Amino acid sequence: MHAYRSNTCGQLRSTDTGSTVRLSGWVHRKRDFGGLLFVDLRDHYGMTQLVVGPTTPGFNLIERLRAESVIRVDGEVVARSPETFNPNLATGEVEVRVTNLEVLSEAAELPLPVFGEPDYPEDIRLKHRYLDLRRETLHRNIVLRSKVIDSIRKRMVGQGFLEYQTPILTASSPEGARDFLVPSRLHPSKFYALPQAPQQFKQLLMVSGFDRYFQIAPCFRDEDLRADRSLEFYQLDVEMSFVTQEDVFAAIEPVMHGVFEEFADGKAVTPYPFPRIPYRDAIAWYGSDKPDTRNPIKMSDVSESFRGGGFGLFARILEDAKNAVWAVPAPGGGSRAFCDRMNSWAQGEGQPGLGYVFWSEDQGGWGGPIAKNLGAEQAQALMSGLGLGQGDAAFFVAGDPKVFYKFAGLARTRVGTELKLIPEDRFEFCWIVDFPMFEWSDEEKKVDFSHNPFSMPQGELEALETQDPLSILAYQYDIVCNGYELCSGAIRNHKPEIMLKAFEIAGYGADVVESQFGGMLNAFRYGAPPHGGLAPGIDRIVMLLAGQTAIREVIAFPLNQQGQDLLMSAPSEVSEKQLKELHIRLAPPIKV
Amino acid sequence: MHAYRSNTCGQLRSTDTGSTVRLSGWVHRKRDFGGLLFVDLRDHYGMTQLVVGPTTPGFNLIERLRAESVIRVDGEVVARSPETFNPNLATGEVEVRVTNLEVLSEAAELPLPVFGEPDYPEDIRLKHRYLDLRRETLHRNIVLRSKVIDSIRKRMVGQGFLEYQTPILTASSPEGARDFLVPSRLHPSKFYALPQAPQQFKQLLMVSGFDRYFQIAPCFRDEDLRADRSLEFYQLDVEMSFVTQEDVFAAIEPVMHGVFEEFADGKAVTPYPFPRIPYRDAIAWYGSDKPDTRNPIKMSDVSESFRGGGFGLFARILEDAKNAVWAVPAPGGGSRAFCDRMNSWAQGEGQPGLGYVFWSEDQGGWGGPIAKNLGAEQAQALMSGLGLGQGDAAFFVAGDPKVFYKFAGLARTRVGTELKLIPEDRFEFCWIVDFPMFEWSDEEKKVDFSHNPFSMPQGELEALETQDPLSILAYQYDIVCNGYELCSGAIRNHKPEIMLKAFEIAGYGADVVESQFGGMLNAFRYGAPPHGGLAPGIDRIVMLLAGQTAIREVIAFPLNQQGQDLLMSAPSEVSEKQLKELHIRLAPPIKV
Repeated sequence: MHAYRSNTCGQLRSTDTGSTVRLSGWVHRKRDFGGLLFVDLRDHYGMTQLVVGPTTPGFNLIERLRAESVIRVDGEVVARSPETFNPNLATGEVEVRVTNLEVLSEAAELPLPVFGEPDYPEDIRLKHRYLDLRRETLHRNIVLRSKVIDSIRKRMVGQGFLEYQTPILTASSPEGARDFLVPSRLHPSKFYALPQAPQQFKQLLMVSGFDRYFQIAPCFRDEDLRADRSLEFYQLDVEMSFVTQEDVFAAIEPVMHGVFEEFADGKAVTPYPFPRIPYRDAIAWYGSDKPDTRNPIKMSDVSESFRGGGFGLFARILEDAKNAVWAVPAPGGGSRAFCDRMNSWAQGEGQPGLGYVFWSEDQGGWGGPIAKNLGAEQAQALMSGLGLGQGDAAFFVAGDPKVFYKFAGLARTRVGTELKLIPEDRFEFCWIVDFPMFEWSDEEKKVDFSHNPFSMPQGELEALETQDPLSILAYQYDIVCNGYELCSGAIRNHKPEIMLKAFEIAGYGADVVESQFGGMLNAFRYGAPPHGGLAPGIDRIVMLLAGQTAIREVIAFPLNQQGQDLLMSAPSEVSEKQLKELHIRLAPPIKV
Repeated sequence: MHAYRSNTCGQLRSTDTGSTVRLSGWVHRKRDFGGLLFVDLRDHYGMTQLVVGPTTPGFNLIERLRAESVIRVDGEVVARSPETFNPNLATGEVEVRVTNLEVLSEAAELPLPVFGEPDYPEDIRLKHRYLDLRRETLHRNIVLRSKVIDSIRKRMVGQGFLEYQTPILTASSPEGARDFLVPSRLHPSKFYALPQAPQQFKQLLMVSGFDRYFQIAPCFRDEDLRADRSLEFYQLDVEMSFVTQEDVFAAIEPVMHGVFEEFADGKAVTPYPFPRIPYRDAIAWYGSDKPDTRNPIKMSDVSESFRGGGFGLFARILEDAKNAVWAVPAPGGGSRAFCDRMNSWAQGEGQPGLGYVFWSEDQGGWGGPIAKNLGAEQAQALMSGLGLGQGDAAFFVAGDPKVFYKFAGLARTRVGTELKLIPEDRFEFCWIVDFPMFEWSDEEKKVDFSHNPFSMPQGELEALETQDPLSILAYQYDIVCNGYELCSGAIRNHKPEIMLKAFEIAGYGADVVESQFGGMLNAFRYGAPPHGGLAPGIDRIVMLLAGQTAIREVIAFPLNQQGQDLLMSAPSEVSEKQLKELHIRLAPPIKV
């Protein structure tokens, strides 16, 4: 017989009754029934109930053994009586009568219980991650992560993509977030940087003649941490040659749909093609470029209903041409109590309040100050224009939409959440497309890139030369799922002259572009194919599928919120010798 | 029709004759036949011959266009006449008569030619890697790499392994090679380190209850570079719980065999189980723990043939009990000329020379000084004992085997190579097993670990407490293929008390172990399963399969031999602001 096991702890069934087996695993739980010990033995695959009698060799041993010790047992598979079946266990129809027992590793007193998974402070969980990971929920999340990534890979390969590794020790990049730096020993005073994303390399792969690239790529950003962001994270990095935006969509939609459907545990997943929502519409309808489209509420511009009308406050605001009034419909929200609650919430958000019209059962019509001022007829026209009627309400935000759109979006989310309009049982995908290429920077009082400077402007060079920069759209797109931005992507600008022009519009001279992006710009001068891609965040996908809201719950060994590895003690002090070899000295902040 | 292509450049066949197609790709080569232009259009998938007539729109454009420009053409698929078939191209039975042509990206004068792949200095190749990667050989290597890794992954998953990612920003590890360090911004004067290998994390995954782990893991070592070693490399990192050494072998053999057979291009691959060769035998037979077992020569100890005998030099050497005489058989090497050549080679290696016996056609018997001194009868007994006869020879090395074994191994390799005994058309695998746990360090005048301190000693605690440390073997093993060490592995020591004892033998107190490996040691105190694994080098596997000898030929964007990325200019200088944020200062070496 094998040194450790004939079967795993998840394998035995009633058909195995009578066989002699050997199992190894962790003591999950022990119960003593009048001298008979029941032990739940656990391994990666499952759990099996052991029965240890008082005359079994090793009985005394196991009696005093702590939970989480590792043991090996020999025994006979016995059918349980039907009334003792455990339907929650795949092995629940049998148990193993132990005839022999050996302790492989004895556990000391546990700093963190495994059984039952009671809440525990995160720092203790991270310091003893090897115990935390034994807990069923986290174990399941990490296995899910592995399976999701494997499924993504298979689907990408099935779509004709090949995975290529790009360097991790690479050059500091002047754009985006803060780089992690790695001092070079061989080249004093010089530094490698860890990639924020393999953006330039994936584009270079296209210029190198590879056609469909993907990589489950580790990325690094030295930014302050949030629940859904880590210093080190993975993205499904994708790039394709000779493609339009629709080709990228067509390649990635079956992958995203497929992997969500495979692991959604019965939740509905948007069929593809996913809806395409222009950025401008996303802002107007949802007040956000990452809308949760499960929320059925769509906002609309109702300025015309208020212009020069009975509700003086809004009429006055609308005298300024840049201003508008937006409506947030609240189907089923027709009560003063709800509207008051929303109004208080808005004040909590730092707003003066939230205008509203609600269906008043008492009055048998539209109530609230706005309705009163508008008059019954106009109020009815307004509300029925919004598709609202008995039992409903609507909220109104007035002012400069550039200023208030985010708040309006929050109000939409709040209404949807409070009224339970957001179905939990689905993953809703959409593309946000047609992002503006440039935006006005109030800070720098100039036109700047609004997102990625390497995207191709729609209309190419001609648009740059003839259009108002702020009206130019880019071939740039995001995937949004349930309100989470899962990825950004773009058709790239592969033409040096268009790139130089775009940078010029944003106020950067050719010298700046050459010095900061010379490697890529040069590459484009020796025959570059049109290309584009995107990069969905792996951790976020797994987080959504696992039903978690913290990224640390889907990473085996995460850093804590202060960027520390409490298990391995990183970051840590290093020796003088190491610093000397790297030609650096410490310069800690001066304490005052 | 699609914006860029109806077909790839590798797709068209004679059955497509008559269709109208659109192709995009790079101008690989242009030939002018009396006003008719023949263009080889290339993309990732292949090459298609275009014919551009003088009246075709764009004829003038393409006539002056440089190679490696990117174009899009429309045209008609035409069958070539059989005498102009190109059997080297999958598309070689057709060509495309171009009706329309557009330049997508014009190439400037090339710093590095793509067509024909003439030899070019490596630094130019690396600086313009996007051109170098378009060359057929390198393109093929990188695609091979991708397919090999994909195949390995599928095979590992097929064997029930799951891939888990371990941290890249982690703790500096006190063992092994030099770490790359990453200064922490949030924690002044502290550093992360990049993993030399995920050794501790994969063991922690086993302690965390995961059963069969693998990862195509990036690893980092700040060591001086060699042709087959890079600062950043990938390994197939593997670990398993509840296993013996044979279980590890049984899990990995089908993977290695399978992936080699899949990509060996018809070369034979050792069937599994692979031969297991104890370390001691590997040294005695091959003078190396990474023997090329394609070489049929096995050395043997022939001390008894010389002890007190006629050949005085060897007899005197053998008077010291630690000394021995080893024979290197040379079947087919029976000529004075060959033996003289080997002797000169040995002198070039810094040896006094190489004793030999060879078959002399002139004498019709064994020739050379050793044979003469031994006498015909003894010489015959010696040589036939080695399985040698007419036409053969043997070389002899005498002295302390601990000192000469490496040289003897080199002589074996040299003989095999010179006599063309090494078949090129096969991949020969073997396991080297039973490595010694400890060795005598002449430098430190003490017993030290000979390889991995975390391996389980054979005989466990009892062996450590009762045996001569230098006689203790470890459950440690290597895979060797064609003389390359492809991986190391071990059954791990999962018991704190055995680990502390092993370190004590090597002269390290419990305090040292606790302070340097406390994280892992602690983990073993809360229930650790017996576990073991290994880690084949991915780059080396691909290198072997691609028939390359430099690792840079199988990496898309490698660093050069000085650790520089010439394309992206890494490592590079960084700003004062960046240094300040990281709380470090430069301390360049002082120039004298």
